[in-house]
Amino acid sequence: MIRAVTSPQACVELPEGTTAKVRVPASSANLGPGFDSLGLALGMHDQISVTVAHSGLDITVDGAGHGEVPLDGSHLVVRAIRKGLDAAGVAVGGLRINCANTIPHSRGLGSSASAAVGGLVAANGLVAQVAPDRVLGVDALVQLSAEFEGHPDNASASVLGGAVVSWTDAPADGEGDCRYFATRLDVHRDIRAFALVPETRSSTSQTRGLLPMHVTHRDAVFNVSRAALAVVALTQHPELLMAATEDRLHQQQRASAIPMTSRWVAELRAAGIPAMVSGAGPAVLALTVDEIPPGLARRAEDEGMLVTELGISGGASLV
Amino acid sequence: MIRAVTSPQACVELPEGTTAKVRVPASSANLGPGFDSLGLALGMHDQISVTVAHSGLDITVDGAGHGEVPLDGSHLVVRAIRKGLDAAGVAVGGLRINCANTIPHSRGLGSSASAAVGGLVAANGLVAQVAPDRVLGVDALVQLSAEFEGHPDNASASVLGGAVVSWTDAPADGEGDCRYFATRLDVHRDIRAFALVPETRSSTSQTRGLLPMHVTHRDAVFNVSRAALAVVALTQHPELLMAATEDRLHQQQRASAIPMTSRWVAELRAAGIPAMVSGAGPAVLALTVDEIPPGLARRAEDEGMLVTELGISGGASLV
Repeated sequence: MIRAVTSPQACVELPEGTTAKVRVPASSANLGPGFDSLGLALGMHDQISVTVAHSGLDITVDGAGHGEVPLDGSHLVVRAIRKGLDAAGVAVGGLRINCANTIPHSRGLGSSASAAVGGLVAANGLVAQVAPDRVLGVDALVQLSAEFEGHPDNASASVLGGAVVSWTDAPADGEGDCRYFATRLDVHRDIRAFALVPETRSSTSQTRGLLPMHVTHRDAVFNVSRAALAVVALTQHPELLMAATEDRLHQQQRASAIPMTSRWVAELRAAGIPAMVSGAGPAVLALTVDEIPPGLARRAEDEGMLVTELGISGGASLV
Repeated sequence: MIRAVTSPQACVELPEGTTAKVRVPASSANLGPGFDSLGLALGMHDQISVTVAHSGLDITVDGAGHGEVPLDGSHLVVRAIRKGLDAAGVAVGGLRINCANTIPHSRGLGSSASAAVGGLVAANGLVAQVAPDRVLGVDALVQLSAEFEGHPDNASASVLGGAVVSWTDAPADGEGDCRYFATRLDVHRDIRAFALVPETRSSTSQTRGLLPMHVTHRDAVFNVSRAALAVVALTQHPELLMAATEDRLHQQQRASAIPMTSRWVAELRAAGIPAMVSGAGPAVLALTVDEIPPGLARRAEDEGMLVTELGISGGASLV
């Protein structure tokens, strides 16, 4: 685990009433061939407001997750704020937190990563007011946020914005923690991001179990070439997005768990729209210089999907 | 197979004495994680001169391959020239060809691909003088040259120059021909390309047999992330080249066939130089913003390796 502060230092106490407010984007991960590797920050945001209190924990959730998520110290945003404050060596008496959520949960739009990133950036916002030299840099934000999920593509997209290439260094001996890294790509300005979001939910841990332990060398090389191509397509050559979003490592393997998603990915691609599963689904992501053909969009809506142009977002920021 | 001319057209006869001269670069393939996917054109060139004769075939080879390669219609350059002329629907009575070769054979520096590309571009040079509308475009050059080898990364690097991302569309039913594609990357200007070339030779067909049929999903994903990262490192962030050239799909698997190569890749990497096997070896490629440490270079030379800065080349061109 990377700590922003490596040497012991005096713990700073944040005064009561200190506040920070964060806007954090949703994200798509596993873009096409880029399983655990390619992510994208989407123009749909949660907002987190945090105020230092004398003591205790008071958390309210509006919007997505209201009445569902735990309102105690196990709440992901609370854990992320505490992790951020700990890393900076900054203490609080108590916290009052409000989450105003628009990112739907368990749809493949990275809501958990957004909560983790939002909490860490909120902590940064508090820390900056008493100990600016202890603010976590982006590398630490990528590391700490990815630790919550065990993969860095969603989290680093929400940290950095745009598209990201992320990678993991697992210790060779299996001992110790993974190190997570990411670098940002500036997405070509003609590329538009649409999502088709079903009402049904999906569990990443469940769909992850559908992946095989082994694949053919040929399929591995197939994805290697398309993942390299995806970087070129996303940044310079949108006309290559169809070839660049082909995949043989995860989408087909999970199709049985998300049949409507798979059908819509296939329908859109047949219509020339580079579409892919967003994360582990069930949302569909389309990256295109065109519109979603109105007839297709209408039919998806008739099946209960929300069809929306989200656009591509910058990273989480204080507001 | 892509033909430059898809409809039957009158065959044009090239007049005796028509000449063309081509300079074609060597190349590295399989860059780091990019097996069959990432290639690089190197600053080491063969030169091919061709003149249309009344009849017959006269071929001479100077430099690399002299006294070794067949001096008849089976010579790769001859086959490539004929393939290029056929594709353009242009006929000749006979050919006089001279190859002035500096690219050593069977070292992992793409000499076969260079011969194929050089022959096709030489044919283009002849065709341009009688039927400019029939000259093969770069897509056709990538396709036709890759067909000679069955993989596109060396050939497309020699066609396009710089670094390339290449990919293959194999027919789903296994019937018919593969289609090969490539796109060029402009390599970051600080990146320098060094080669360590042993005197020993290697056979690609032999080392290809060392690759496993299956790999773990984890290793596949490892290479997927590094291949995407390699595009970022090569074009924008040379400081990421070490992470971006990590590989789990081919180098370790072939290490037993090229022990000296593997040892030098490891030694250079331990010294902080992003090194990798060039193609299927035995040459080593180092892509770095620094020098090869003089002590290491001297030791490699003591072991009989040629250590040389080749630089990065543009694509094959008429001279």
